[in-house]
Amino acid sequence: MPFANGIAMTGMEELFAKTCEYVRDTARLEATLALLEWDDRTFRPADGGAYRAEQIMQLSGVIHQRRTDDRLGEMLGELSASSLATDPHSDFGATIARLYKDYRRHSRLSVELVQAISKATTLGQQAWEQARHRNDWASFQPHMETIFSLRRREAEMLSDGGPLYDSLLDHYEEGARSQQLSATLAELRTGLIPLVQSLSDAPARPDGRAWRRNVAKDLQRAASRWVAEQVGYDFQRGRLDETSHPFCTTLGPNDCRILTRYQVDYFPSGFYGTLHEAGHGMYEQGLRGQWYGLPPGSAASLGVHESQSRLWENFIGRSRSFWLWAFPKLNSILGGAWHDFDAEQTYRDANRVQPSLIRVEADEVTYNLHILIRFELEMELITGELSCADAPQAWNDRYHRYLGIRPRDFRDGILQDIHWSAGLIGYFPTYTLGNLYAAQLMRTIARDVGNIDEVVQRGEFGEILQWLREHIHCCGRCYEPVSLIERATGQALSAQPLIDYLRTKLDPIHAVG
Amino acid sequence: MPFANGIAMTGMEELFAKTCEYVRDTARLEATLALLEWDDRTFRPADGGAYRAEQIMQLSGVIHQRRTDDRLGEMLGELSASSLATDPHSDFGATIARLYKDYRRHSRLSVELVQAISKATTLGQQAWEQARHRNDWASFQPHMETIFSLRRREAEMLSDGGPLYDSLLDHYEEGARSQQLSATLAELRTGLIPLVQSLSDAPARPDGRAWRRNVAKDLQRAASRWVAEQVGYDFQRGRLDETSHPFCTTLGPNDCRILTRYQVDYFPSGFYGTLHEAGHGMYEQGLRGQWYGLPPGSAASLGVHESQSRLWENFIGRSRSFWLWAFPKLNSILGGAWHDFDAEQTYRDANRVQPSLIRVEADEVTYNLHILIRFELEMELITGELSCADAPQAWNDRYHRYLGIRPRDFRDGILQDIHWSAGLIGYFPTYTLGNLYAAQLMRTIARDVGNIDEVVQRGEFGEILQWLREHIHCCGRCYEPVSLIERATGQALSAQPLIDYLRTKLDPIHAVG
Repeated sequence: MPFANGIAMTGMEELFAKTCEYVRDTARLEATLALLEWDDRTFRPADGGAYRAEQIMQLSGVIHQRRTDDRLGEMLGELSASSLATDPHSDFGATIARLYKDYRRHSRLSVELVQAISKATTLGQQAWEQARHRNDWASFQPHMETIFSLRRREAEMLSDGGPLYDSLLDHYEEGARSQQLSATLAELRTGLIPLVQSLSDAPARPDGRAWRRNVAKDLQRAASRWVAEQVGYDFQRGRLDETSHPFCTTLGPNDCRILTRYQVDYFPSGFYGTLHEAGHGMYEQGLRGQWYGLPPGSAASLGVHESQSRLWENFIGRSRSFWLWAFPKLNSILGGAWHDFDAEQTYRDANRVQPSLIRVEADEVTYNLHILIRFELEMELITGELSCADAPQAWNDRYHRYLGIRPRDFRDGILQDIHWSAGLIGYFPTYTLGNLYAAQLMRTIARDVGNIDEVVQRGEFGEILQWLREHIHCCGRCYEPVSLIERATGQALSAQPLIDYLRTKLDPIHAVG
Repeated sequence: MPFANGIAMTGMEELFAKTCEYVRDTARLEATLALLEWDDRTFRPADGGAYRAEQIMQLSGVIHQRRTDDRLGEMLGELSASSLATDPHSDFGATIARLYKDYRRHSRLSVELVQAISKATTLGQQAWEQARHRNDWASFQPHMETIFSLRRREAEMLSDGGPLYDSLLDHYEEGARSQQLSATLAELRTGLIPLVQSLSDAPARPDGRAWRRNVAKDLQRAASRWVAEQVGYDFQRGRLDETSHPFCTTLGPNDCRILTRYQVDYFPSGFYGTLHEAGHGMYEQGLRGQWYGLPPGSAASLGVHESQSRLWENFIGRSRSFWLWAFPKLNSILGGAWHDFDAEQTYRDANRVQPSLIRVEADEVTYNLHILIRFELEMELITGELSCADAPQAWNDRYHRYLGIRPRDFRDGILQDIHWSAGLIGYFPTYTLGNLYAAQLMRTIARDVGNIDEVVQRGEFGEILQWLREHIHCCGRCYEPVSLIERATGQALSAQPLIDYLRTKLDPIHAVG
């Protein structure tokens, strides 16, 4: 509890405690909802889907009711006017400010709209699954129209006059604004497009031989568990399972689970999937448990979350020092499968840059161009500048323009991602924001830790994790993401650190065989 | 839905539909609670236990509130007086009668008592776990006193003047009365004690060699999955996992999961554990899905549930024709582990009778004596005739009297079962009732199917399952257990069929080597 024992509470402190208890009760239900969803994506028997959907709808309804309860609004209104709210970045002040903001957001939405979105996105995801499988855009287009129209309505209900897109974006990345974001991403694009071209024309591109060698799933499982433990993911408070789309979910203050998928003929899929999700998991495990379910014990944003996963997956996991450390141990775990390779080979293969059509398989550089395309399209779709009917063409044209390649079908084009079918609009840019944040963070960590390459090469990740715990995890949601990163790094949001990092690492790899 | 489409409903039918919808909503929450518990016993990370307990308490509270809601009582009162309730065994009549009975039962209990029991049994199970591990009765005794005293209070609140024990028993086995049950179990005891003695002194007892051979867990998993599929457990609507104490749980109309445990050096543990739980699972899968969460789509009682598991585990799974069918296939699944045995050997080993201290490892005959001891003791404990302090001595004395052996410590004596620590009083006799029901059912099935041995020897279990579907599963909870069994078998509850079955099977096995 936020109050020391034995000290008498003021009336306002009592109201604060009561409000927190109410929100904690809701969080307990949210954790139960997360279990329904985790199980749905892992162990639920095939025929149990329809009933599971009913259970999820039911509990979502109970939670929405609690979130928009008038009494909650009254309590938060009173607290907002009190001295406890004076410092908006203190634990108390942030709790009041963020909860009140969430309450007002939820209360602006009618139950009808919330239910309509829930229904449309459930149907939308089912239709998307089918449509993608059959490469059938026409069957999905009406769902996409409904979903964009409902979320546009939501944005209108939420907007205070700014761009509609920003109302949606704010839900995933508090305080982010499309105008500033567009400028930063344009700067990034300007830096990356020539980089992709120069790397594609480079004399000595990694050949990916190590990644093309078959590795049995059991060995991959052992490798994944090992690396997650090494970087600091706590299995007493988590577990690693398998699913078709890797994710991380939190089911309580001491229960954060990660999931990956293994491909026999493509080792990095399971390995980097695990490292990525372990990064998410360590963020959740680093939040302050006594504030679980409340802003000081919650993640700052999706972008900050992604910065943690990308930092471990890419900035550390694709570094030369990482492979100098990991190679002999991994080769041994994999039963000597790489006996004719060395650390240099796996390091190079982990950094192969190649324009491709599928986002989730993209390398560190082109990944951001995939995101940029989605960000630009969904902004135009939400304003109505672009119609859903014209979206596939616009998608393909932009792939040609930014990546020099053009999808031959819908499956490898606009139907590849689940996000829009699930109503996730304003979500995509947080992936690239995560990369930008991670580049800024990694530069600062390198400065603070000093001999970062040696630390990683010795497999001593504790110091890095500790730095993140202190500068990011412990702050919870007490600062908006950009402020949080600026406080931690001393630098405003910028594309330059990411561009510098990529150039510095990738140019030499592609220059020499 | 219970009403045909397109036909206008009367006001009372509308009330019935509304009541069902209310109860279905509660059932959805109960299924969610069951998932919290299933996950707690399978995949929950070590440190997540405390928060999980909070989630379970929270949802239990919400469910208790819904079950005792005044509006529910009013609706059921009105329906009870209507013509829909006339036939208490029709779907409509049974729904009204059973729901009203449940409502009145739940409503008689104060929230304080329900919460006190919930807390005492959570603490009790934790204390039991420790106490059993350390063989420390003294640390558990106060928990047992609290739990028996709370459940005695519950029995007083529920009782209409009959024996207190019956109020608890009725919760697990509707309509059962301790007086009649005592007489039946005494009859059973009279038949079994001399049988145990004669088998113990028999010239040619099975030596258990097949069961003592090590079998790798992966092979055992394959064998378990195979046998569950063969008898008719539907994996599209279920799954098989591992846990420390085997169980079966229902998470929805198309999601019933079974769990077993494997011991490398004792094959029957996992194999018969699976067959037992598959029997439970097939009962749940055979209930009418359109009535899910309502009496016509619910199991009749714990005893009837146990009759289904025992029928598949013992009456079929330990028969000679079963082993004539299963042996070659199992030996092949197990990679030839039994190459120097034959069906006769595994059949004999599956029917080894040997007095022992541990209930869960007991054979088909002595198992019932283990139950009898617990039944007699808990009746005396609930009336206060026996004190908790004297219970271990009484336990040991009765083991000596009925089984000729005496526990040397608490761990193998009164601390072996979780039940009392979990507040489950009146639960034990349902195990033996299950055996009695199963014997009656099996005799009738053999008569109706005709050539039962040949059917089993061909592995054609569909006909048997179909019989159970028609005569037991489809009836749901529309009849009290004893009536249900009497309707299905044409015979009142009796110990004789079980005694006959055991003698007929076991005497020859022990007479010839």
